[in-house]
Amino acid sequence: MRIDLVTLFPELFEPFLETSFIGRARASHALGVRFRSPREFGLGVHQSVDDTPYGGGSGMVLRVDVMVACMEAMDADAPDGVVAQRILLTPQGRPFRQADAEQLSALPAVMLICGRYEGFDDRIRSFVDDELSLGDFVMCGGEVAAMAIMEACVRLLPGVLGNAASTHEESHSPGNAGLLEYPQFTRPAEFRGMPVDPVLVSGDHARIARWRRDRSIERTQQRRPELLDGFVVPEPVRKKR
Amino acid sequence: MRIDLVTLFPELFEPFLETSFIGRARASHALGVRFRSPREFGLGVHQSVDDTPYGGGSGMVLRVDVMVACMEAMDADAPDGVVAQRILLTPQGRPFRQADAEQLSALPAVMLICGRYEGFDDRIRSFVDDELSLGDFVMCGGEVAAMAIMEACVRLLPGVLGNAASTHEESHSPGNAGLLEYPQFTRPAEFRGMPVDPVLVSGDHARIARWRRDRSIERTQQRRPELLDGFVVPEPVRKKR
Repeated sequence: MRIDLVTLFPELFEPFLETSFIGRARASHALGVRFRSPREFGLGVHQSVDDTPYGGGSGMVLRVDVMVACMEAMDADAPDGVVAQRILLTPQGRPFRQADAEQLSALPAVMLICGRYEGFDDRIRSFVDDELSLGDFVMCGGEVAAMAIMEACVRLLPGVLGNAASTHEESHSPGNAGLLEYPQFTRPAEFRGMPVDPVLVSGDHARIARWRRDRSIERTQQRRPELLDGFVVPEPVRKKR
Repeated sequence: MRIDLVTLFPELFEPFLETSFIGRARASHALGVRFRSPREFGLGVHQSVDDTPYGGGSGMVLRVDVMVACMEAMDADAPDGVVAQRILLTPQGRPFRQADAEQLSALPAVMLICGRYEGFDDRIRSFVDDELSLGDFVMCGGEVAAMAIMEACVRLLPGVLGNAASTHEESHSPGNAGLLEYPQFTRPAEFRGMPVDPVLVSGDHARIARWRRDRSIERTQQRRPELLDGFVVPEPVRKKR
């Protein structure tokens, strides 16, 4: 998979691209990353990328001509001519979900377009394939959102995480029916008066599996009941509540 | 405001803490940041911070004793004895929203506790004040979530952004009634056959304000109708649709 980053702050990504599994994915060529800054296409002596908003208001708006020039230059030298799916990162986009991560990670190339300042000239929307938001909160730029989306996608690439099973039993994962994960425990067996549940040390695999499934459903009911929409809660758990 | 980061990968934050308004907030002492790695409190020759899960399964679980030792050491040398509100970053937490950013940014100190691997020993929940999730997608660690939360909080601190007005007219902001922001435009007035709406260059401030409010409501209706719950749509916009 290739990720093309359109950003005014490529340096923000440096340690992120070297650390942990993202670094390993790049080293093994499972992941390729390219950068391009709109600044290259900025206008005038200051290479301006933004201007004041029509109709007045505070802040600066990223120019559509500069942004489009940057995206098109990205495509013009795309390796093997593989042009990326263009994703605009904006608080007005569809909230990013695990299903988007699964979909994007299956694509050969994705372009993540990061804004800054008061956002993009709205006409940029005609030049992108999709618009995503990280959530219902305001940030100052798309870079951290791009890292979150990259992290969620790259960990799904085949061979990137050591154990493929572990990508499928987690909170929000399809292997866990979209439910929250069951609680995990490790040594010590007791900490400040809090013991681990005896079931988990029983060695009875079927009982452990049931216990975990029940806790997963229970926790989802308590914390995120809306995630259970369309999920048929098995009898033993339903009766308890 | 002070942010205490509990993380195994402090280097991930380096350029983030230097760049843009976060760097300026630190330079002006509006923001203080402290780090502590659970590795310092790791066990044995390898300073292990994790162990295999009770009951079996793939991956490693962060030990509660190590994590609690790290959090307590953070508190023990808190400047002026101001102990931070402890926030665990976990996919099982409440999804982070703009209201959380507003609340957290009003606190004197917040501790963001980042996990890695298969997550935390569940008993850690008894030692934190709150649990937050970035959204319904799976990441490999809490670091990028911590950056997103920091960015959303720090931009709300007084004096950090040049123009306080601009924090209140954006998507998801209370100044915009929680709606999506109206579309923004800047020069050029026409780009590849797409002109800017004549209203915006009319100089009629009342008409511009109405146009923007209507577009904001319209866009929210189209893209995120659930954000309009409890919002009374004014007549002229309601009639149009």
